[in-house]
Amino acid sequence: MIRYRAEVAVELQSLREQVLEANLELHRRGLALYTWGNASGFDRARGLVAIKPSGVPYDRLTAVDLVVTDLDGAVVEGRLRPSSDLRTHLALYRAWDDIGGVVHTHSTHATAWCQARRPLPCLGTTHADHAAGPIPCAPPLSAAAVAGDYEAATGAQILAAMAGTDHRHTPMVLVGGHAPFTWGADPAQAAHHAVVLEELARLALLTLQIDPRAKPLPPAIADKHWQRKHGPRRTYGQG
Amino acid sequence: MIRYRAEVAVELQSLREQVLEANLELHRRGLALYTWGNASGFDRARGLVAIKPSGVPYDRLTAVDLVVTDLDGAVVEGRLRPSSDLRTHLALYRAWDDIGGVVHTHSTHATAWCQARRPLPCLGTTHADHAAGPIPCAPPLSAAAVAGDYEAATGAQILAAMAGTDHRHTPMVLVGGHAPFTWGADPAQAAHHAVVLEELARLALLTLQIDPRAKPLPPAIADKHWQRKHGPRRTYGQG
Amino acid sequence: MIRYRAEVAVELQSLREQVLEANLELHRRGLALYTWGNASGFDRARGLVAIKPSGVPYDRLTAVDLVVTDLDGAVVEGRLRPSSDLRTHLALYRAWDDIGGVVHTHSTHATAWCQARRPLPCLGTTHADHAAGPIPCAPPLSAAAVAGDYEAATGAQILAAMAGTDHRHTPMVLVGGHAPFTWGADPAQAAHHAVVLEELARLALLTLQIDPRAKPLPPAIADKHWQRKHGPRRTYGQG
Amino acid sequence: MIRYRAEVAVELQSLREQVLEANLELHRRGLALYTWGNASGFDRARGLVAIKPSGVPYDRLTAVDLVVTDLDGAVVEGRLRPSSDLRTHLALYRAWDDIGGVVHTHSTHATAWCQARRPLPCLGTTHADHAAGPIPCAPPLSAAAVAGDYEAATGAQILAAMAGTDHRHTPMVLVGGHAPFTWGADPAQAAHHAVVLEELARLALLTLQIDPRAKPLPPAIADKHWQRKHGPRRTYGQG
Repeated sequence: MIRYRAEVAVELQSLREQVLEANLELHRRGLALYTWGNASGFDRARGLVAIKPSGVPYDRLTAVDLVVTDLDGAVVEGRLRPSSDLRTHLALYRAWDDIGGVVHTHSTHATAWCQARRPLPCLGTTHADHAAGPIPCAPPLSAAAVAGDYEAATGAQILAAMAGTDHRHTPMVLVGGHAPFTWGADPAQAAHHAVVLEELARLALLTLQIDPRAKPLPPAIADKHWQRKHGPRRTYGQG
Repeated sequence: MIRYRAEVAVELQSLREQVLEANLELHRRGLALYTWGNASGFDRARGLVAIKPSGVPYDRLTAVDLVVTDLDGAVVEGRLRPSSDLRTHLALYRAWDDIGGVVHTHSTHATAWCQARRPLPCLGTTHADHAAGPIPCAPPLSAAAVAGDYEAATGAQILAAMAGTDHRHTPMVLVGGHAPFTWGADPAQAAHHAVVLEELARLALLTLQIDPRAKPLPPAIADKHWQRKHGPRRTYGQG
Repeated sequence: MIRYRAEVAVELQSLREQVLEANLELHRRGLALYTWGNASGFDRARGLVAIKPSGVPYDRLTAVDLVVTDLDGAVVEGRLRPSSDLRTHLALYRAWDDIGGVVHTHSTHATAWCQARRPLPCLGTTHADHAAGPIPCAPPLSAAAVAGDYEAATGAQILAAMAGTDHRHTPMVLVGGHAPFTWGADPAQAAHHAVVLEELARLALLTLQIDPRAKPLPPAIADKHWQRKHGPRRTYGQG
Repeated sequence: MIRYRAEVAVELQSLREQVLEANLELHRRGLALYTWGNASGFDRARGLVAIKPSGVPYDRLTAVDLVVTDLDGAVVEGRLRPSSDLRTHLALYRAWDDIGGVVHTHSTHATAWCQARRPLPCLGTTHADHAAGPIPCAPPLSAAAVAGDYEAATGAQILAAMAGTDHRHTPMVLVGGHAPFTWGADPAQAAHHAVVLEELARLALLTLQIDPRAKPLPPAIADKHWQRKHGPRRTYGQG
């Protein structure tokens, strides 16, 4: 079945290139120092995930270096070890059947909010344009959870923190004491959300420096901005 | 009347190029992430406005992509959808008969002041060189205003906030919970004011971090700086 | 006496090039937005000052654009109007007979300290390496002083603030409500001090964010660092 | 023994190039303004240290400019004066027999923590990935210690501050009132730690701006991150 295998290879090549591009975008945008952070993509039809290898600097990363695994984390293609955060990515792909990309960074301002263990409040329309409400912050894992499968437990912690929040409308989360994760329909969108989250985190921090008791954006305006950009009758963009 | 039409096209070409350049300037100066922000220009003789299309990234933007409308927002030229903030721009062009450019950004520090819903105080000569007094901050719109023509209501909110302030001496405003708008004699000057406002907002924020009770600049010095740069006997510049 | 005149021209050419380079350095280092800021140089033997023209952007500035004046501000060479801050520069050249360059910027962090009207405390060795003690902050001018020769009065205000401080050991000052001035043996050194002051101002601001009651550097360490870099038995550098 | 000498020269050439590269890295990463900061490397087999010369700008620095000394600071090769911080570097090489590189910078955020004289708390996994616990802050030297061999006393002060902390697990220290030092197996690793420390310092400062009472990372998570990156059963990277 050589022909079939060639098709798989071509499909995976496309997935690899999307994931490579998302990883490089994190680096270009200043969200990832050295080897920090990682982006993955999920080919749902084939049940395969491509992810950055662990500890490889962005400026040497190529599509061939990416590691392809199944949804259980078994390596299907690639000679390198996958990102140590792989099992957190897998938990999100398993839980949400409409996402095709996950990104994890230690971007400065978003990580500061994680370290402060505070949800990111919606203080303005810039936030409302991209997330429908505050960005949840998962509490740090217990010592027991850490002692088990740490990365999978981080995934479960994220899912618990997102309970009650529609992941399609709020495509980002803070992990308390750790750093943010974002997701999207594909790796490029997940990376886009990582860049946006970093700016929202910076904006909120600066806002609180001007007024520590700054109030959330009134819900009517927040909803208006969300709807005009993402709602069924959206007016933003050309689509 | 071929000759007449060609003249119109040439004139509009000039307007388009000015508006393109102002939009690109926002991007070059780091005031606009992705597709955020927009600049427009108004050809008052013809009653035509050129504005950035909605959701188009700056690095792909060309003069042909700009959308030309009349003062009521009816599209006269262009195949793309205009910026969703168009009607806010139009409200300013209609209200002030001496402006030829409007810019809207979500630049970080100016937006933080908007989110804190505070007017930007005049704390030093850098501010006084560019604006005669504090920069007003319009309150967020009511739910009722949001439910109607949101963008036109934002324009009305800006005009109400600027009542009592000479828009020629203070060519910038903060919209509470949202982001800033600036204007000028042409698109280039409006973009210039957007860059200046971002720096004034950053300066004021840092000043308050050093002394939360920092006092406004004494009026005599503020007036001196305004006069030496913009007054009838100005000594600044070569004009 | 053609030969003599040619020598003068060559000498002034050297002064012009030094002053041009100092101005461009302000721009390259991010200390000067648009046309803000200015550097001058003083040829003490000839009693001539070269200074940036008013309102000319750095990226178009050439040595020919610089304006040469005498110590009273009378233009000797140049077709453009000199920087509006000229008379402040002249006041410093007249008061201190060992300086050959003056720089004025609105660099962000130094200007924030000016706006807060606070002297810059010596909180660490980075500061002590470059200035022997706190950087004085002149109070804003009175309305009466502003109504007279504003720029000359600013010079007098600086000299009053520096009374009791050796200008050779502390080559920088803050002007309350306004922005900093720095000086040095030549224009390059004055520009160097402007860059250093901006970093000292940023360091001090961040330090106070960590501990608002941070203590000054112990005098023994401050003196040690000053001496090892500038004292008669200095060990720093190759000179 | 010409052959032996040639080997020495080749070995030293390798040391010189490693030290040059570490110094240039400090400059490229924005950790060193002008001539500030310095990196050294130690060839333990030969007992020779190569270090940046004092006061030489990074953009003119070449491998030939580096100064080679023995562990007592006697110059073995080089015509320039070594960094004035040489004796602090030597104190660390003498105390710890497994380090091969030392770096000193005045990087902005790490220096702000030094000026605040506060240890850098471990507030998140970014910190735990690189240092096992808070980064100690040595108190400023006494006037008596300053009056003696200042740079050697700084080394002793660092060693005293690191007592009780494993220098292999926490490869960085703050010197109160001064600036940070970092170290590693070789000059490149020492420079890497300097870059990481600057980011950890920035992250911690921003975290405290969001919540001045932010809590340290729970020890179980801190240990997990340290172990997964550096422990005997580490899963991070490809090694």
